[in-house]
Amino acid sequence: MNDVNGYVKSGGRLKARRAGIDTYQQPVVYMRRDCAVCRAEGFEAQAQVELVANGHQVPALLNRVDAEWLAHDEAALSEAAWGLLGLADGDEVLVRHATPLESLRFVRAKVYGRKLDYPSMRALIDDISRGRVSDLHLAAFVTACAGGRLDAQEVVALTRAMVDVGERLSWPMSPVMDKHCVGGLPGNRTTLIVVPIVTACGVVMPKTSSRAITSPAGTADTMETLAPVALDIATMRRVVEREGGCIAWGGSARLSPADDMLIRVERPLDLDSEAQLVASVLSKKAAVGSERVLIDLPVGPTAKVRSSAAAQSLAASLIEVGSAIGLQVQVLETDGRQPVGRGIGPALEALDVMAVLHRHTEAPQDLRERSLLLAGTLLEMAGRAGPGHGLALATRTLDSGLALAKFIALCEAQGGLREPPRAAHSAVVAAPATGRVGAIDNRRLARAAKLAGAPRDPAAGAVIHVRLGDAVAAGEPLFTLHAEAPGELAYALAYVNAQEAAIVVIDPPDSGADSAADNAPAAAAETGTYLP
Amino acid sequence: MNDVNGYVKSGGRLKARRAGIDTYQQPVVYMRRDCAVCRAEGFEAQAQVELVANGHQVPALLNRVDAEWLAHDEAALSEAAWGLLGLADGDEVLVRHATPLESLRFVRAKVYGRKLDYPSMRALIDDISRGRVSDLHLAAFVTACAGGRLDAQEVVALTRAMVDVGERLSWPMSPVMDKHCVGGLPGNRTTLIVVPIVTACGVVMPKTSSRAITSPAGTADTMETLAPVALDIATMRRVVEREGGCIAWGGSARLSPADDMLIRVERPLDLDSEAQLVASVLSKKAAVGSERVLIDLPVGPTAKVRSSAAAQSLAASLIEVGSAIGLQVQVLETDGRQPVGRGIGPALEALDVMAVLHRHTEAPQDLRERSLLLAGTLLEMAGRAGPGHGLALATRTLDSGLALAKFIALCEAQGGLREPPRAAHSAVVAAPATGRVGAIDNRRLARAAKLAGAPRDPAAGAVIHVRLGDAVAAGEPLFTLHAEAPGELAYALAYVNAQEAAIVVIDPPDSGADSAADNAPAAAAETGTYLP
Repeated sequence: MNDVNGYVKSGGRLKARRAGIDTYQQPVVYMRRDCAVCRAEGFEAQAQVELVANGHQVPALLNRVDAEWLAHDEAALSEAAWGLLGLADGDEVLVRHATPLESLRFVRAKVYGRKLDYPSMRALIDDISRGRVSDLHLAAFVTACAGGRLDAQEVVALTRAMVDVGERLSWPMSPVMDKHCVGGLPGNRTTLIVVPIVTACGVVMPKTSSRAITSPAGTADTMETLAPVALDIATMRRVVEREGGCIAWGGSARLSPADDMLIRVERPLDLDSEAQLVASVLSKKAAVGSERVLIDLPVGPTAKVRSSAAAQSLAASLIEVGSAIGLQVQVLETDGRQPVGRGIGPALEALDVMAVLHRHTEAPQDLRERSLLLAGTLLEMAGRAGPGHGLALATRTLDSGLALAKFIALCEAQGGLREPPRAAHSAVVAAPATGRVGAIDNRRLARAAKLAGAPRDPAAGAVIHVRLGDAVAAGEPLFTLHAEAPGELAYALAYVNAQEAAIVVIDPPDSGADSAADNAPAAAAETGTYLP
Repeated sequence: MNDVNGYVKSGGRLKARRAGIDTYQQPVVYMRRDCAVCRAEGFEAQAQVELVANGHQVPALLNRVDAEWLAHDEAALSEAAWGLLGLADGDEVLVRHATPLESLRFVRAKVYGRKLDYPSMRALIDDISRGRVSDLHLAAFVTACAGGRLDAQEVVALTRAMVDVGERLSWPMSPVMDKHCVGGLPGNRTTLIVVPIVTACGVVMPKTSSRAITSPAGTADTMETLAPVALDIATMRRVVEREGGCIAWGGSARLSPADDMLIRVERPLDLDSEAQLVASVLSKKAAVGSERVLIDLPVGPTAKVRSSAAAQSLAASLIEVGSAIGLQVQVLETDGRQPVGRGIGPALEALDVMAVLHRHTEAPQDLRERSLLLAGTLLEMAGRAGPGHGLALATRTLDSGLALAKFIALCEAQGGLREPPRAAHSAVVAAPATGRVGAIDNRRLARAAKLAGAPRDPAAGAVIHVRLGDAVAAGEPLFTLHAEAPGELAYALAYVNAQEAAIVVIDPPDSGADSAADNAPAAAAETGTYLP
């Protein structure tokens, strides 16, 4: 009864406490099952409640607690809830039944097969961007949109709504160029080469990139080993005004904020919805003020897009929706069968980039060629080179050293060029047999690089010494793991040795070391996956 | 590094600890962000992991913790995870990456609009019933099935799969009768009257019922104030052999175990999928071995089914799918505009039931009439009464005292008839003005009864003294709240006084106290909702 009297006295308020529990973006509140508010409000486990504090209202999932770490007058909040409410320990938080979200009827409408117009999409995406929509409802929405259930007009409405609920940059110059890679391959750090080539030719390219979510390095992580990337909007504008471009982290501005919320449920559901992908990519591009966008679409058996037919459908949608929201989009289908360059991990990828910019003879040619192709296409799209002449201009700009000079200038403008760190420890993984490289498993290599510490330790990761189809002798190095600490190196090595081979050596040498990698091998010398 | 060495030594095992956190049926594991296993495995927040202990494998959601209540070598488990693994404090638990569930491809197939056959449904429902499918995937499945996206064959396959993955009772007698109410009204405790009437006429009716989930009382809660209901299968069989029926709690057997899992996501999503409802109801009935089932379908503006058209579509599907899985189904559309009887709360509803069985003159006539209608229909369905003669037989059986005698015998067989408890405290809520009862808000009344302590305190709840359209004078009692403790009574009263009226008195007396409740009132004397 003290509880109930306590409740009446407190008016449903509890002392806020940081639970220190990371539930990703889903706000959760932990309350004693027998606390005054829980009993009085009749909250059930997993109830949707509303938290009110500091003038913010945040929907949260309730978890009832029977344990001594939480007091009866406390409400412990997950990291997401804590951050959204801007709380300090001991602040009061009001917990009440969630007011039903008006926009959830649009989720239901879509579930029941109705078409959503712009105002409906806008209302829903606005609530999603503010963290008001639960994971379950997000899952329902994403599901209801998948399988081609959004028509072209709806994808346009969704994309526009995703742009409109966030901030939007604009630039005084034109055309503003951009590029994006769908479902990045490890090591595909062309951005750091493309931007200096394109801007050295006088074309504007204010590039924002993301940090790694699940990969061993994002473009922003790699760039950060060479120069500061966490630029605020004012700094970014200054850099772009001076140099015609930048390579910044896009996370500090509120650009297409609903996108991250949708991605958090799309990933575990493994729903590759073309509509959501198009809206995600194009909304980010429109929000940063880009006008002409080149999309790099790697196709391969372990890439996000696995067939040329899927690539063509996706490309058509990107171009159509882009056009509707005022973006000129061009798509390049590229080889997605193996990592690009040698390094996997922020600093190791940066070394590949610098080798290409410096025109070192040992620089990875695949990274150089992809970058030149993309830069050349962008130069043509910008009208800086005539049709068919972009590649030559890009190549001259790189080979003359102009791109390197521009990259150094960009880095200086962003806060100063620096040397990527080198890891203290390394270990070589050698070929178990003589043969040729039949398969490279991007995912296992990425996992090993992460276990070695990437991207948390920017120097950590892996360097691959072979390409598909290369001949190797038993004992020759396949790849080298880099780590800052011997324990992590040991753990990454233990993973590599315990799992199926990340790089598979097949075929005895007499079958011809120069046969193409995509000829089906008769048998695998090592257990493991190999190209079809 | 000690962490990593610790991990290598422990092989990914941590000390299990009961977190005491109720996440309903979603298993969650809490691990220190910087613990050896988290770091070594590279788990992210909200990762799907697999817990292994005591020969069980349970999929769980990972929540990373930065707080002192959890040690680095511990894994704290939510109540659901703890129960599924059958752990004791200090047991070892292995945490590893979840092996992808094969059956999730059927979720994706359905999302992409493909038709699921029985083996696909069976594989998926089997994983769901074992708690292997995450809430997000359940939400995707439920969404993909909603909006008429399951055809009749798929609903049959789903229903059959839901039956087949659980236990199934069988009875040596035939026909085995059953009844079910879709979206129960408060106080609609006809089961406790129908079963004794039907079994007193020699018809077999082994009835299992549920406890309250969100309501102030389930049929099992109400029955439990009169006799034991937590019967194991053997006891249930003995009772049915002796008395031809029982009124037991259905939760102790594993009957259609996937149903609860699906309901946990359907409720917050507020998706009233006809397909899922049909599968849910009929799978439970088939699992308990019923052969002929009468469905009570209340229709009203605040009931689950709101229009006669929706009721007819649902009835058609119940009959068609029932027939396909060997159940003879009949549906009765009933009045769902207000609560049935007077009591809301386990003991208060039991008193209504006993008054009807005892043929007291003040017994609630609506409860009596509904029960007789349902019992009469069941007697006709069983062939015990000719068409049109069931109601008369049911009425004779009740009025002769045979039903009361049978009810007492049923209670004795289940462990002994007992007196329902009476609450220590009560308070009357009076009419604020003279007029007539224009609306009764089932949900607010149910909420007040829960705040007063129902169903946790079986004696707590509310007693309604008026019916729609009744004339009342200012100060006359509308309803009485009952509670075991003065504080809870005060809180329920505070809720009643603070909110819009649960029972709305409208119209001055001169407008005619005998006008029908569903004539639109010109104006409400009290703020609040009223019938259209």
